[in-house]
Amino acid sequence: MRIALFDQYRIGIVDGAAVRDVTDVVDSRWHGTPYVINELIEHFDELQAPLRAALASAEELPLADVTLLPPVPRPGQLLAAPANYHAHVTEMSTSQYRPTNAQALQSPREVGFFVKSSGSISGPSDAIELPPMPGRAFHHEVELGIVIGKPARGVPAERVADHIFGYVILLDLTLRTEGERQEERTMRKSFETFTPIGPFIVTADEVPDPGDLDLKLWVNGELRQQANTRDLIVGIGELIEQASNVVTLRPGDIYATGTPEGVGPIEVGDVVRAEIDGLGELSLPVVKRGW
Amino acid sequence: MRIALFDQYRIGIVDGAAVRDVTDVVDSRWHGTPYVINELIEHFDELQAPLRAALASAEELPLADVTLLPPVPRPGQLLAAPANYHAHVTEMSTSQYRPTNAQALQSPREVGFFVKSSGSISGPSDAIELPPMPGRAFHHEVELGIVIGKPARGVPAERVADHIFGYVILLDLTLRTEGERQEERTMRKSFETFTPIGPFIVTADEVPDPGDLDLKLWVNGELRQQANTRDLIVGIGELIEQASNVVTLRPGDIYATGTPEGVGPIEVGDVVRAEIDGLGELSLPVVKRGW
Repeated sequence: MRIALFDQYRIGIVDGAAVRDVTDVVDSRWHGTPYVINELIEHFDELQAPLRAALASAEELPLADVTLLPPVPRPGQLLAAPANYHAHVTEMSTSQYRPTNAQALQSPREVGFFVKSSGSISGPSDAIELPPMPGRAFHHEVELGIVIGKPARGVPAERVADHIFGYVILLDLTLRTEGERQEERTMRKSFETFTPIGPFIVTADEVPDPGDLDLKLWVNGELRQQANTRDLIVGIGELIEQASNVVTLRPGDIYATGTPEGVGPIEVGDVVRAEIDGLGELSLPVVKRGW
Repeated sequence: MRIALFDQYRIGIVDGAAVRDVTDVVDSRWHGTPYVINELIEHFDELQAPLRAALASAEELPLADVTLLPPVPRPGQLLAAPANYHAHVTEMSTSQYRPTNAQALQSPREVGFFVKSSGSISGPSDAIELPPMPGRAFHHEVELGIVIGKPARGVPAERVADHIFGYVILLDLTLRTEGERQEERTMRKSFETFTPIGPFIVTADEVPDPGDLDLKLWVNGELRQQANTRDLIVGIGELIEQASNVVTLRPGDIYATGTPEGVGPIEVGDVVRAEIDGLGELSLPVVKRGW
């Protein structure tokens, strides 16, 4: 199932170029709020029958006629894996933006996750907004994003699948710094619109092997990143096991699994396009921030 | 005004040893949910008349008869200043836990903020739970916490006060690492119960000068940290200006302003007590995590 959020926080099931509005399956207290999707996720199992009924009766809207929102506008937590593809570690270790902190090139197995601000989330209809910081570089990073379903606390890797609701394409935009005066990584990655997700959540049952998905990212039509999640240094099971031993993961929380090689600069006027097998695509203009 | 959250997400105005339930001033759709306090904060100006009426008619409950919750259980964002008191920078630079990343001892003016997981929030009735990590140290850090009121986007330091709702005592518990193999700082600070806040929010009108507040922290009755917010390297205005130029701060977001010198280990069986002028006190047992 492809679950989108659109217009005034309506929940839509996407099928090809059409979408069906199933918002009414969620308790009306949440309607019109960004939390409606977290509620759907939390109660998804018990909502199967109402969902089927709603799908059968809802009229089809053309996807082109709605405005897609970030499918989870307010994740309670937004966690992210540091260096998690060998070839990306290699490129960063010789980059002019090489982290001054050697730990930053170690895998999540050694150093764990970092936290991004939830306010950095944006969606398939939003531009990537670059703040006015003359002389500074901003880089694209395409990643597989995991959407948590059932609360996860101390979950062993082999049972993690029971706690995953679905997957999204996720971009982890990053302010880069040359030389020794690097700001906090979590701040460099927390600017508004620096975590586009979408275009919808694809539920886990439609992703037979999340450890074998091609990721691609283009800038202005030029292929810049291309990899497969089989090259993750630390796999999804171990990532979620580790995080769930630090803090309880809740429905709608998002985990960004790390980016492969090929990261590079984006500039105002560019168009960034990302695809992951079966998860759709994001195509986002890069603009100067308007505030 | 001292605003507490208690029992099943009831909003209470605390006066001495009594509390008055004013939950009904907030739209009932939010009742029974952790977001009720974010809603109160967002609409606080327009709710002044209903609040006064509710206060006049509500019966007094003994504070001792209710269970206080974290006053903001679900901040959308939980941001924190790194090294922001000179004497703490000095103690960390010679500590066995000295950060391997030199940037980690620079002030927020140089390196900005870092992000903690919202799931680390706990409250005045919760224990501090230490995860089972034999041989590892956990440190206490007492801090002034800022609760955002009006949305803040690109706010200059001199106008920040208009966007601050109030203040809380905040503890920033931290897993320490000796030597070179330090995990991500944001993960070391994001364990569940590692951000106790409370006991209530004191609204900004009752804090005449947040830049002149004594902070104290005791472990088992022994004074460990004692400082005044006048010693902040980067003051509140500049901290919020900087953060609001990265991402929009929203009602209920929390900013931890940094800890002074005197940080040190806590162990299972300890009792940690913290006080800040006018903000009440937190007194929390340290226990072994039960999961």
